[in-house]
Formats: sequence, structure tokens, C-alpha cells
Amino acid sequence: MAMPDPVAPTVDLRSYLASRGRMVEEALDAALPGTDALPGPLHTAMRYSLFAGGKRLRPMLVLASAEATGGDPADALPTACAVEIIHTYSLIHDDLPSMDDSPLRRGRPTCHVAFGEAIAVLAGDALHALAFELLTKTAKTAGPAWTLQVIEEIAGAIGTRGMVGGQVLDLLGEGRPSLAHLGRWPADAREGVHTIHRWKTAALIRASVRAGAILAGASPVQLRDLSIYGEHLGLAFQIIDDILDEAAETTAGTGERADAGKLTFPSVFGVERSRALAGEETERAIAALQGWGPSAAILNDLARAQLVREA
Amino acid sequence: MAMPDPVAPTVDLRSYLASRGRMVEEALDAALPGTDALPGPLHTAMRYSLFAGGKRLRPMLVLASAEATGGDPADALPTACAVEIIHTYSLIHDDLPSMDDSPLRRGRPTCHVAFGEAIAVLAGDALHALAFELLTKTAKTAGPAWTLQVIEEIAGAIGTRGMVGGQVLDLLGEGRPSLAHLGRWPADAREGVHTIHRWKTAALIRASVRAGAILAGASPVQLRDLSIYGEHLGLAFQIIDDILDEAAETTAGTGERADAGKLTFPSVFGVERSRALAGEETERAIAALQGWGPSAAILNDLARAQLVREA
Repeated sequence: MAMPDPVAPTVDLRSYLASRGRMVEEALDAALPGTDALPGPLHTAMRYSLFAGGKRLRPMLVLASAEATGGDPADALPTACAVEIIHTYSLIHDDLPSMDDSPLRRGRPTCHVAFGEAIAVLAGDALHALAFELLTKTAKTAGPAWTLQVIEEIAGAIGTRGMVGGQVLDLLGEGRPSLAHLGRWPADAREGVHTIHRWKTAALIRASVRAGAILAGASPVQLRDLSIYGEHLGLAFQIIDDILDEAAETTAGTGERADAGKLTFPSVFGVERSRALAGEETERAIAALQGWGPSAAILNDLARAQLVREA
Repeated sequence: MAMPDPVAPTVDLRSYLASRGRMVEEALDAALPGTDALPGPLHTAMRYSLFAGGKRLRPMLVLASAEATGGDPADALPTACAVEIIHTYSLIHDDLPSMDDSPLRRGRPTCHVAFGEAIAVLAGDALHALAFELLTKTAKTAGPAWTLQVIEEIAGAIGTRGMVGGQVLDLLGEGRPSLAHLGRWPADAREGVHTIHRWKTAALIRASVRAGAILAGASPVQLRDLSIYGEHLGLAFQIIDDILDEAAETTAGTGERADAGKLTFPSVFGVERSRALAGEETERAIAALQGWGPSAAILNDLARAQLVREA
């Protein structure tokens, strides 16, 4: 399979990310309760983790896929906020001492280090609930039936056969070459690491891509193409994440991650082969939209940009 | 205010609870993934905590309020399961070492003791997501618009101005006579403990009562009455819980709860006065449905039964 050109983000993508990024930041700020409202310490912790310099990939995918299928990005904003809020809740819980035990994230103390473990657990729980409250808000523009379909898909994507299930497999696989001890698990570590990341990361990314399009009234054929795009983009994203984490650990020992012993793409395939796999997944994502013409430009650029990101 | 007769459950209530209880247990079993499906250890932990002998008050309220307003209980079953699943997730997280640090619940090791802290956090998270997936399932019978209203109300009831917010106030108030140090908080502990319990417990109970009725197509007047009923029942329920916990600690030191230093009704009002307050709240709950005639019989009996429960 030919490799896509790993080009730097185009000017169009940059300006798209800047303008849609502003929309998302403003909407997130409006959606979160203020720090002077009771219980203030909880709201402070929620905001601390949500406004920590994240890349906002998932909300960008919601908006870009809505726009690629003829929707108004403003109508999809509550859903865009919801998927970022879910992502943030999952990071807070993943960082806990009983999980990855990460003291730092993006160079800052993690939520439990800054606010204590109890508040961190509860900030995650409150963000989780808030996300579903926000997901109901598209009823007026997209109609209640499509809104419900989005809620069902996102809830499924973050449950036991999605984000949380993948995190469990990730934890249980730590320090083991395969997860065969769990039964019903591919004996081959290469297949295993694919499953973990398909659940842990790709499921919510795929659901984000689908959500924007569902709200915009996309056709079944468009949704099928976007599902393939989202699945492969999600895998490419996680492979690149693994490679960046490995590089950060090798060069610095920053303590941002505790991936040692986990099943990651670099640990299973090596860095070089992982990089090639990320390229192949990106190629497949872009190929899924090849009949779309210019309407897929931003989605394609978003996929290519993952290959050259540095954080 | 006159006290209601604290009578033992009537024969009608007993047979109602038995038949609806069977419906709920079967529906919960069908809703939870099997322990042989990946990731098995997660599903085992979710089932361990969900099938631990809970009273199923919240699902009973969903079904009884649906039936009181002319609905078919079978149509409200997914919602009944969802509120019990949410309640279970909240117990798992509340029991964690960083929160109440409870080794036992209902005489059995808590989820984190039995399965480890990481799996307990994730079992709670997975139940939380599963609940919202289930909440979408009433679309076919109740229609998508009413289903969405239920989702919005339940998400609001378990967020920062509901269940999670109440738990935060509960934790932050530990060992202090008031929560005045948080700002914007009633200087009076009596008002404070009401707020904590209105958020921590009554909000989800009220939402459960309203949910059943919304799905059954209740009128605005019926919903208004049921909201008052649910709010007062929720407070009565929590006061009784506090009294039972205090009694259990005094007689046994069983280690089931770590309420020492928390703002509870007995700690603020004393046991005798708390008992009277529970009676008054129950009276108010029943009074809200006084124009309803026989259709409110089960709801009234459910409220009365709280006053005489022993666990």
C-alpha cells in the first residue's frame, strides 16, 4: 500500500482549526458550571482538566464531519463539546493512582495530584453526566430521533466494548506478552494490541465522526464511508500516541506516562514498523472518502496532520 | 403536622414488589454483558455489585409512577434498569478508599476489595455509560422526544447540582459543623444537611419518579405532584438511611460505613428529631398525591414502607 505524503497541515486546515477551535472553547466554557457556584472545588477541578491545552481532535471531527455532509457546525456544537468532555473524564480516571498513576499530563500536575483523589474521581463522574446532558441539546436542530441515535452510539462506544473495555484490557495486559490468560483472546499480541486500541481509542473517534454526520442528516452510504474513515483514523491516532509516548520516555523520563510493560504498538511491532502502520491506517482512512471530492478536504487534512504531530 | 401511620407493607405492596422485582431482575440480567464476554473481569465486577441484594427502590418508583399515570410497566423497564445501574455505579465509587473507604456493603466485600481499585473505578464508569445506552431504548414505545426529556432530567439529577455535587459536599463537610468555608453555603448546619441530601439522594429519586410518568405521558399537573412526592420521599429515605447507619455503627462497629464526622440528620438533629422529620417528609410526599385516589396506592405504600424498613 502506498504511503500518503506526510505533509504539514495546510493553510486551510490551520484556519479551520483556529476558527472551529474558538467555537469549541467558547461552547465548553459556557457548558461548564462556574467556579463560584456550589460545589466550587468540583467545578474548579473539572475546568482545570478540561482547559489543559488538549488538541480537541474529537470535537473537530464532529464539526468537520457535520460540515462534510452539509450540516451547520453550530448545530453540532453540543455534541462536539460532549465528546471532548467524555475524553477528559477518561483521562482523569486513567491517570488515577490505581490506574496509570500519572503525576503529570501535558506538563501539569494531573487532576488527582492537584485536587486530591476523591475530587478527581468525582470530577470525572460529573463530566461524564454533563456530557450526556449536552448530547440531548441537539434535539431542536437535528430532531429527537437522530439525537437519540447519537446518544446510543456514543454510550456504546465508551462502555465495555469500547473505551472502558479497552482500558480494562490495557490494564490487564500489563507486563504480559499476550492476553491469552483472559480466555477468548487472540493468542497473537499483534491482533491483541489492535483490539485494545480499537476499543480504547478508535471507538470514540469513530463515534465522533459518525455523530456529526448523523446530526447533519447524512445518507447510509456517507455514514458507511465515515465509519471506515473513523476506525482507521482512530487506530492511526493511537499508534502515533504510542510512538510519541515511547520517544518522550526514552529522551526524558518525564514521568508523564507509565506505559512500561503495556501492550503498545512500538512494544509489539517496533517503532519503525509502527510508523509504517500508522501511515497505512491513515491511507485507509483517506481512501474511504475518495469519492467525496472537495467536501472531504478537511477530514483528509485532519487525518494527515496526525502523522506529523509532535504532541 | 400529623404523623402518618408507620404501618408495615400491605399485602398489595408485597405482591407488587415481588412481581415487579422479578421483572427488574430479569431485565437487569439481560442488560448486563455476560462474564464470558471480553473483558470478563470487568463484567464480573459489574454484576457482583449490581446483584448484591439491593432494595431496588429507584426502579420500583419508575414502574409505580408509570403505572399510576396509566403506563405499561414493561415500557418503562429500560429506564427502571438504568436508574438502578446509576445507583450501583455511585455506590461503587462512594466506597472507594479515596472516598468513604468502606470495606463492606450489605455484608459483602465492596467492589474494590473484591476486584481491586482500578477495576472498581472502571466498573462504575462502564455502568454509568450502560445506563445511558439503556435510557435510549424507550424511544419506540414512548417516542424519542419524551425519551430525550428523561435522559436530560436524569443526567441533570446525577451531575454537579445532583448526586455527584451532593457527594462532594458530603466529603468536603466531613469533620466540620458547617460548610461555610466553601462560601455561598448556609451558615446553618440544618439547612446544609438538607441541601446535601436533596442533591446526593433526593435528586435521583425525584428524577426516577418523574421518568416513569414522563414515559407514560403524564400531564403537567401530574408531573408537578410527582415532583413534590419524589423530593420529599427522597429526603425521608436519606434520613432513615442515616438513622439506620448510626444504629448499625453504635451496635456493631461493622465497618460498613465511615460516616463519622459527616453531616447527617442524626448528627445535626439527634435521632429522635430525625425520626420525626422522616415522618413529616413522608407525610408531605403522600399529601402531594392526595387528589389521586386509588391510582396512588402503591406510591403511597412505597413511601410509608421506608419509615419501617430495617436495612
